[in-house]
Amino acid sequence: MTKGSNARRERRRRTREIEIDPDSLSKVFVEHYYSTFDTNRSGLANLYQDSSMLTFEGQKIQGSQNIVAKLTSLPFQQCKHIITTVDCQPSGPAGGMLVFVSGNLQLAGEQHALRFSQMFHLMPTPQGSFYVYNDIFRLNYA
Amino acid sequence: MTKGSNARRERRRRTREIEIDPDSLSKVFVEHYYSTFDTNRSGLANLYQDSSMLTFEGQKIQGSQNIVAKLTSLPFQQCKHIITTVDCQPSGPAGGMLVFVSGNLQLAGEQHALRFSQMFHLMPTPQGSFYVYNDIFRLNYA
Repeated sequence: MTKGSNARRERRRRTREIEIDPDSLSKVFVEHYYSTFDTNRSGLANLYQDSSMLTFEGQKIQGSQNIVAKLTSLPFQQCKHIITTVDCQPSGPAGGMLVFVSGNLQLAGEQHALRFSQMFHLMPTPQGSFYVYNDIFRLNYA
Repeated sequence: MTKGSNARRERRRRTREIEIDPDSLSKVFVEHYYSTFDTNRSGLANLYQDSSMLTFEGQKIQGSQNIVAKLTSLPFQQCKHIITTVDCQPSGPAGGMLVFVSGNLQLAGEQHALRFSQMFHLMPTPQGSFYVYNDIFRLNYA
Protein backbone atom coordinates (compact mmCIF):
# COMPACT_ATOMS: atom_id res chain seq x y z
CA MET A 1 0.00 0.00 0.00
CA THR A 2 1.49 3.37 -0.97
CA LYS A 3 1.68 6.49 1.13
CA GLY A 4 -0.48 8.25 -1.50
CA SER A 5 -3.33 5.76 -1.23
CA ASN A 6 -3.29 6.06 2.56
CA ALA A 7 -3.55 9.82 2.26
CA ARG A 8 -6.41 9.49 -0.23
CA ARG A 9 -8.21 7.09 2.10
CA GLU A 10 -7.78 9.49 5.04
CA ARG A 11 -9.12 12.37 2.95
CA ARG A 12 -12.16 10.29 1.96
CA ARG A 13 -12.75 9.31 5.59
CA ARG A 14 -12.60 12.93 6.72
CA THR A 15 -14.89 14.08 3.92
CA ARG A 16 -17.40 11.42 4.93
CA GLU A 17 -17.25 12.52 8.57
CA ILE A 18 -17.92 16.12 7.62
CA GLU A 19 -20.81 14.99 5.45
CA ILE A 20 -22.54 13.06 8.20
CA ASP A 21 -21.78 15.16 11.28
CA PRO A 22 -25.18 16.72 12.09
CA ASP A 23 -23.76 19.89 13.65
CA SER A 24 -21.61 20.68 10.61
CA LEU A 25 -24.42 19.79 8.23
CA SER A 26 -26.90 22.02 10.06
CA LYS A 27 -24.48 24.97 10.02
CA VAL A 28 -23.89 24.52 6.28
CA PHE A 29 -27.63 24.33 5.71
CA VAL A 30 -28.32 27.44 7.82
CA GLU A 31 -25.66 29.49 6.02
CA HIS A 32 -26.96 28.35 2.64
CA TYR A 33 -30.61 28.96 3.54
CA TYR A 34 -30.23 32.52 4.85
CA SER A 35 -27.69 33.65 2.26
CA THR A 36 -30.12 32.44 -0.43
CA PHE A 37 -32.99 34.20 1.37
CA ASP A 38 -31.01 37.46 1.52
CA THR A 39 -29.69 37.43 -2.06
CA ASN A 40 -32.03 35.33 -4.25
CA ARG A 41 -35.21 34.53 -2.34
CA SER A 42 -36.91 32.65 -5.19
CA GLY A 43 -33.93 30.27 -5.20
CA LEU A 44 -35.30 28.79 -1.96
CA ALA A 45 -37.76 26.79 -4.10
CA ASN A 46 -35.07 24.13 -4.55
CA LEU A 47 -34.98 23.48 -0.80
CA TYR A 48 -38.70 22.63 -0.49
CA GLN A 49 -40.88 19.93 -2.06
CA ASP A 50 -44.65 19.57 -2.63
CA SER A 51 -45.10 17.94 0.78
CA SER A 52 -43.20 20.70 2.60
CA MET A 53 -44.98 22.78 5.24
CA LEU A 54 -44.30 26.34 6.37
CA THR A 55 -45.98 28.03 9.32
CA PHE A 56 -45.07 31.71 9.03
CA GLU A 57 -46.21 33.84 11.97
CA GLY A 58 -49.09 31.37 12.46
CA GLN A 59 -50.09 31.17 8.77
CA LYS A 60 -49.94 27.64 7.36
CA ILE A 61 -48.70 27.13 3.79
CA GLN A 62 -47.97 23.88 1.95
CA GLY A 63 -45.86 23.07 -1.10
CA SER A 64 -42.66 24.53 -2.53
CA GLN A 65 -44.45 26.88 -4.94
CA ASN A 66 -46.83 28.32 -2.32
CA ILE A 67 -44.05 28.65 0.25
CA VAL A 68 -41.80 30.59 -2.12
CA ALA A 69 -44.76 32.73 -3.24
CA LYS A 70 -45.25 33.65 0.43
CA LEU A 71 -41.56 34.34 1.11
CA THR A 72 -41.09 36.46 -2.03
CA SER A 73 -44.23 38.51 -1.27
CA LEU A 74 -43.19 39.56 2.23
CA PRO A 75 -43.43 43.35 2.57
CA PHE A 76 -39.70 44.00 2.36
CA GLN A 77 -37.19 43.57 -0.44
CA GLN A 78 -33.73 43.81 1.03
CA CYS A 79 -32.93 42.06 4.29
CA LYS A 80 -30.10 40.41 6.12
CA HIS A 81 -30.33 37.53 8.61
CA ILE A 82 -27.72 37.54 11.38
CA ILE A 83 -27.62 34.14 13.09
CA THR A 84 -27.13 33.98 16.87
CA THR A 85 -27.58 30.25 17.65
CA VAL A 86 -27.96 26.98 15.70
CA ASP A 87 -28.96 23.77 17.52
CA CYS A 88 -29.63 20.43 15.89
CA GLN A 89 -30.81 16.93 16.76
CA PRO A 90 -31.56 13.81 14.70
CA SER A 91 -35.35 13.41 14.41
CA GLY A 92 -35.63 9.63 14.23
CA PRO A 93 -34.98 6.48 12.19
CA ALA A 94 -35.99 8.09 8.85
CA GLY A 95 -32.71 10.07 8.91
CA GLY A 96 -34.25 13.49 9.41
CA MET A 97 -32.64 16.34 11.25
CA LEU A 98 -34.14 19.14 13.36
CA VAL A 99 -32.44 22.52 13.11
CA PHE A 100 -33.39 25.29 15.55
CA VAL A 101 -32.18 28.80 14.77
CA SER A 102 -32.34 32.12 16.58
CA GLY A 103 -31.12 35.41 15.21
CA ASN A 104 -31.83 38.91 14.02
CA LEU A 105 -33.48 40.05 10.83
CA GLN A 106 -32.26 43.44 9.64
CA LEU A 107 -34.55 45.14 7.10
CA ALA A 108 -33.16 47.80 4.76
CA GLY A 109 -33.91 51.27 6.08
CA GLU A 110 -34.99 50.08 9.53
CA GLN A 111 -32.97 51.15 12.55
CA HIS A 112 -33.72 48.15 14.77
CA ALA A 113 -33.32 44.52 13.80
CA LEU A 114 -36.18 42.06 14.48
CA ARG A 115 -35.42 39.03 16.64
CA PHE A 116 -36.67 35.73 15.24
CA SER A 117 -36.69 32.00 15.96
CA GLN A 118 -37.14 29.36 13.28
CA MET A 119 -37.08 25.60 13.15
CA PHE A 120 -36.49 23.33 10.16
CA HIS A 121 -37.04 19.60 9.85
CA LEU A 122 -34.69 18.39 7.10
CA MET A 123 -35.43 15.07 5.46
CA PRO A 124 -33.01 13.09 3.28
CA THR A 125 -33.62 12.78 -0.46
CA PRO A 126 -32.87 9.56 -2.41
CA GLN A 127 -29.99 11.54 -4.03
CA GLY A 128 -28.22 11.88 -0.67
CA SER A 129 -29.16 15.50 -0.11
CA PHE A 130 -31.77 17.05 2.22
CA TYR A 131 -34.96 19.04 1.72
CA VAL A 132 -37.04 21.10 4.17
CA TYR A 133 -40.10 19.08 5.23
CA ASN A 134 -41.15 21.32 8.15
CA ASP A 135 -40.46 25.04 8.64
CA ILE A 136 -41.87 27.16 11.47
CA PHE A 137 -40.99 30.86 11.73
CA ARG A 138 -41.79 33.34 14.49
CA LEU A 139 -40.72 36.88 15.24
CA ASN A 140 -39.88 37.31 18.94
CA TYR A 141 -41.48 40.55 20.02
CA ALA A 142 -40.00 42.09 23.15
CA MET B 1 -81.63 3.30 15.31
CA THR B 2 -82.52 5.38 18.35
CA LYS B 3 -81.92 9.05 18.87
CA GLY B 4 -79.69 8.10 21.85
CA SER B 5 -77.34 5.94 19.76
CA ASN B 6 -77.00 8.70 17.18
CA ALA B 7 -76.05 11.13 19.91
CA ARG B 8 -73.52 8.67 21.35
CA ARG B 9 -72.01 8.12 17.91
CA GLU B 10 -71.76 11.88 17.38
CA ARG B 11 -70.07 12.30 20.76
CA ARG B 12 -67.57 9.55 19.89
CA ARG B 13 -66.87 11.17 16.52
CA ARG B 14 -66.24 14.54 18.14
CA THR B 15 -64.03 13.02 20.82
CA ARG B 16 -61.97 11.31 18.13
CA GLU B 17 -61.62 14.57 16.22
CA ILE B 18 -60.40 16.37 19.32
CA GLU B 19 -57.95 13.54 19.97
CA ILE B 20 -56.42 13.65 16.51
CA ASP B 21 -56.56 17.38 15.73
CA PRO B 22 -52.89 18.38 15.94
CA ASP B 23 -53.54 21.97 17.01
CA SER B 24 -55.73 20.95 19.94
CA LEU B 25 -53.33 18.17 20.92
CA SER B 26 -50.32 20.49 20.87
CA LYS B 27 -52.13 23.08 23.03
CA VAL B 28 -53.08 20.38 25.56
CA PHE B 29 -49.49 19.15 25.60
CA VAL B 30 -48.05 22.65 26.04
CA GLU B 31 -50.40 23.46 28.92
CA HIS B 32 -49.60 20.14 30.59
CA TYR B 33 -45.84 20.48 30.06
CA TYR B 34 -45.42 23.97 31.47
CA SER B 35 -47.89 23.58 34.34
CA THR B 36 -45.95 20.43 35.36
CA PHE B 37 -42.67 22.36 34.98
CA ASP B 38 -43.96 25.19 37.16
CA THR B 39 -45.54 23.06 39.93
CA ASN B 40 -43.82 19.63 39.99
CA ARG B 41 -40.70 19.71 37.81
CA SER B 42 -39.62 16.12 38.53
CA GLY B 43 -43.00 14.96 37.19
CA LEU B 44 -41.70 15.80 33.68
CA ALA B 45 -39.85 12.45 33.76
CA ASN B 46 -43.03 10.75 32.53
CA LEU B 47 -42.96 12.79 29.32
CA TYR B 48 -39.46 11.65 28.24
CA GLN B 49 -37.95 8.23 27.46
CA ASP B 50 -34.37 6.87 27.38
CA SER B 51 -33.99 7.87 23.73
CA SER B 52 -35.19 11.43 24.33
CA MET B 53 -32.86 14.34 23.62
CA LEU B 54 -32.74 17.80 25.18
CA THR B 55 -30.55 20.65 23.98
CA PHE B 56 -30.75 23.29 26.71
CA GLU B 57 -28.98 26.57 25.85
CA GLY B 58 -26.62 24.56 23.65
CA GLN B 59 -25.94 21.75 26.16
CA LYS B 60 -26.89 18.29 24.88
CA ILE B 61 -28.48 15.82 27.30
CA GLN B 62 -29.98 12.38 26.56
CA GLY B 63 -32.42 10.18 28.46
CA SER B 64 -35.37 10.92 30.74
CA GLN B 65 -33.35 10.65 33.95
CA ASN B 66 -30.54 12.98 32.78
CA ILE B 67 -33.00 15.45 31.30
CA VAL B 68 -35.02 15.73 34.50
CA ALA B 69 -31.79 15.96 36.55
CA LYS B 70 -30.86 18.98 34.39
CA LEU B 71 -34.27 20.62 34.62
CA THR B 72 -34.56 20.16 38.39
CA SER B 73 -31.04 21.52 38.96
CA LEU B 74 -31.60 24.82 37.12
CA PRO B 75 -30.60 27.74 39.37
CA PHE B 76 -34.14 28.80 40.24
CA GLN B 77 -36.88 27.10 42.21
CA GLN B 78 -40.09 28.94 41.51
CA CYS B 79 -40.98 30.00 38.01
CA LYS B 80 -43.94 30.57 35.75
CA HIS B 81 -44.07 30.09 31.97
CA ILE B 82 -46.43 32.42 30.12
CA ILE B 83 -47.04 31.13 26.61
CA THR B 84 -47.25 33.61 23.70
CA THR B 85 -47.51 31.34 20.62
CA VAL B 86 -47.92 27.62 19.87
CA ASP B 87 -47.40 26.30 16.33
CA CYS B 88 -47.53 22.68 15.29
CA GLN B 89 -46.99 20.50 12.21
CA PRO B 90 -47.02 16.73 11.62
CA SER B 91 -43.41 15.52 11.29
CA GLY B 92 -43.89 12.61 8.88
CA PRO B 93 -45.27 9.11 8.39
CA ALA B 94 -44.21 7.86 11.87
CA GLY B 95 -47.05 9.95 13.35
CA GLY B 96 -44.83 12.47 15.14
CA MET B 97 -45.72 16.07 15.78
CA LEU B 98 -43.55 19.19 15.96
CA VAL B 99 -44.60 21.80 18.51
CA PHE B 100 -42.95 25.23 18.47
CA VAL B 101 -43.50 27.49 21.48
CA SER B 102 -42.57 31.07 22.30
CA GLY B 103 -43.22 32.77 25.60
CA ASN B 104 -41.93 34.38 28.77
CA LEU B 105 -40.34 32.76 31.78
CA GLN B 106 -40.96 34.65 34.99
CA LEU B 107 -38.61 33.74 37.83
CA ALA B 108 -39.62 34.38 41.45
CA GLY B 109 -38.11 37.62 42.72
CA GLU B 110 -37.02 38.84 39.27
CA GLN B 111 -38.54 42.01 37.89
CA HIS B 112 -38.25 41.17 34.19
CA ALA B 113 -39.40 37.98 32.53
CA LEU B 114 -37.03 36.13 30.18
CA ARG B 115 -38.18 35.50 26.63
CA PHE B 116 -37.74 31.95 25.38
CA SER B 117 -38.37 29.72 22.36
CA GLN B 118 -38.65 25.95 22.58
CA MET B 119 -39.45 23.16 20.19
CA PHE B 120 -40.68 19.65 20.94
CA HIS B 121 -40.89 16.64 18.67
CA LEU B 122 -43.63 14.40 20.08
CA MET B 123 -43.67 10.75 19.04
CA PRO B 124 -46.59 8.35 19.53
CA THR B 125 -46.33 5.53 22.07
CA PRO B 126 -47.84 2.07 21.45
CA GLN B 127 -50.37 2.97 24.18
CA GLY B 128 -51.80 5.78 22.05
CA SER B 129 -50.12 8.61 23.92
CA PHE B 130 -47.09 10.76 23.05
CA TYR B 131 -43.62 11.25 24.51
CA VAL B 132 -41.02 13.97 23.90
CA TYR B 133 -38.34 12.61 21.54
CA ASN B 134 -36.67 15.97 20.77
CA ASP B 135 -36.58 19.11 22.92
CA ILE B 136 -34.58 22.24 22.12
CA PHE B 137 -34.71 25.26 24.43
CA ARG B 138 -33.21 28.74 23.97
CA LEU B 139 -33.55 31.99 25.83
CA ASN B 140 -34.03 34.92 23.44
CA TYR B 141 -31.75 37.66 24.65
CA ALA B 142 -32.71 41.13 23.50
